[in-house]
Amino acid sequence: MRIDILTVLPEMLQSPLNCSILKRAQDKGLVEIVVHNLREYTTNKHRKVDDYPFGGEAGMVMQIEPVDRAISHLKSQRDYDEVIYTSPDGEQLSQPMANAMSLLDNIIILCGHYKGVDYRIREHLVTREITIGDYVLTGGEMPAVIIADAVVRLIPGAIGDEQSALSDSFQDNLLAPPVYTRPADYNGWKVPDILLSGHQAKIDQWKHEQAVERTRRLRPNLLK
Amino acid sequence: MRIDILTVLPEMLQSPLNCSILKRAQDKGLVEIVVHNLREYTTNKHRKVDDYPFGGEAGMVMQIEPVDRAISHLKSQRDYDEVIYTSPDGEQLSQPMANAMSLLDNIIILCGHYKGVDYRIREHLVTREITIGDYVLTGGEMPAVIIADAVVRLIPGAIGDEQSALSDSFQDNLLAPPVYTRPADYNGWKVPDILLSGHQAKIDQWKHEQAVERTRRLRPNLLK
Repeated sequence: MRIDILTVLPEMLQSPLNCSILKRAQDKGLVEIVVHNLREYTTNKHRKVDDYPFGGEAGMVMQIEPVDRAISHLKSQRDYDEVIYTSPDGEQLSQPMANAMSLLDNIIILCGHYKGVDYRIREHLVTREITIGDYVLTGGEMPAVIIADAVVRLIPGAIGDEQSALSDSFQDNLLAPPVYTRPADYNGWKVPDILLSGHQAKIDQWKHEQAVERTRRLRPNLLK
Repeated sequence: MRIDILTVLPEMLQSPLNCSILKRAQDKGLVEIVVHNLREYTTNKHRKVDDYPFGGEAGMVMQIEPVDRAISHLKSQRDYDEVIYTSPDGEQLSQPMANAMSLLDNIIILCGHYKGVDYRIREHLVTREITIGDYVLTGGEMPAVIIADAVVRLIPGAIGDEQSALSDSFQDNLLAPPVYTRPADYNGWKVPDILLSGHQAKIDQWKHEQAVERTRRLRPNLLK
């Protein structure tokens, strides 16, 4: 899988893309993540990527030309399954969506910044708009990392213990049950006896009950 | 405002916390963001922060002791409004929640990692659990950045043009209208005539209609 990220702030992406699972997956050759500075696709002297909006409003708007040039350049080299734009009014990122995206070959993620991108980019160049939630952020850079992380960790081999991903929250429409580790007693705060009992069948039943109870209480919509 | 972030991967947070608005807000003294390596609060020789779960399951669990020691250390220095844990089954981060949090003085954000934290941490030490969305990530580090970004940009002075935050999506329960910038004609893709008309009242009316139409189509739940 290859992920190309288009941004005006490439330096912001440096540490998250080079740590932990994302780093390991790249080192193993499971994914190639390439960050492109949109300023390198400008034709003006000052490498300006934004301009004032038509119709008078506060904030700056990312221009179509550098984005179009960057996407055209990439498309001339390979086919892309999706050109994703991170936007607060896009489709909500979900676990099923991440599962499906982990099977794609090549995707472009365009990070919005300032007041957003020229709407013609969204009409003509973007194939899918994704939001990570109903809140406003400074830019689309962190959402791009979130999408990459949610997707890449599902590629077989990306996380050390694949069993671990299967028992994650959401994968079976249930929240994960509570987990505990040593010490069994910490200043009087104790681990539930059942987990220390050694009866694996009873432990598994307890975990399932806890998962169902937590889901019913905290995320009833997952049970529908 | 002060935000203390507790993590096992401090290096992952480096570039996002030192770019763009988050950097500017710290430089201006509007917010202090301090990242703490939980390994520095361990008492064992190998600075281990995780252990196997009781009851046999794949994945590792973050131990209570370093987290308790870190939180106690911070609380001995100042009062905290909230100890937040980033967890997929927490409350969904929303714009009203970000607005409210931007008024707080001191918060701790604990980043989960591996299979999560020992549940006793959530029962006894955490005051609020927040998720950024219904999907699983490698760790709570990026969600911590998302929360910090959503909150800090609302502190007066953090973003250059305060008008810009007021016209963001969600702040009036409407998605933002489409925005356009120069050129007015890009390879035949044109900006709507109305925006070039100079009739500000008509332009404002068009923007409002577009915002309502987009909200009705894409996020009808915001209009309830």
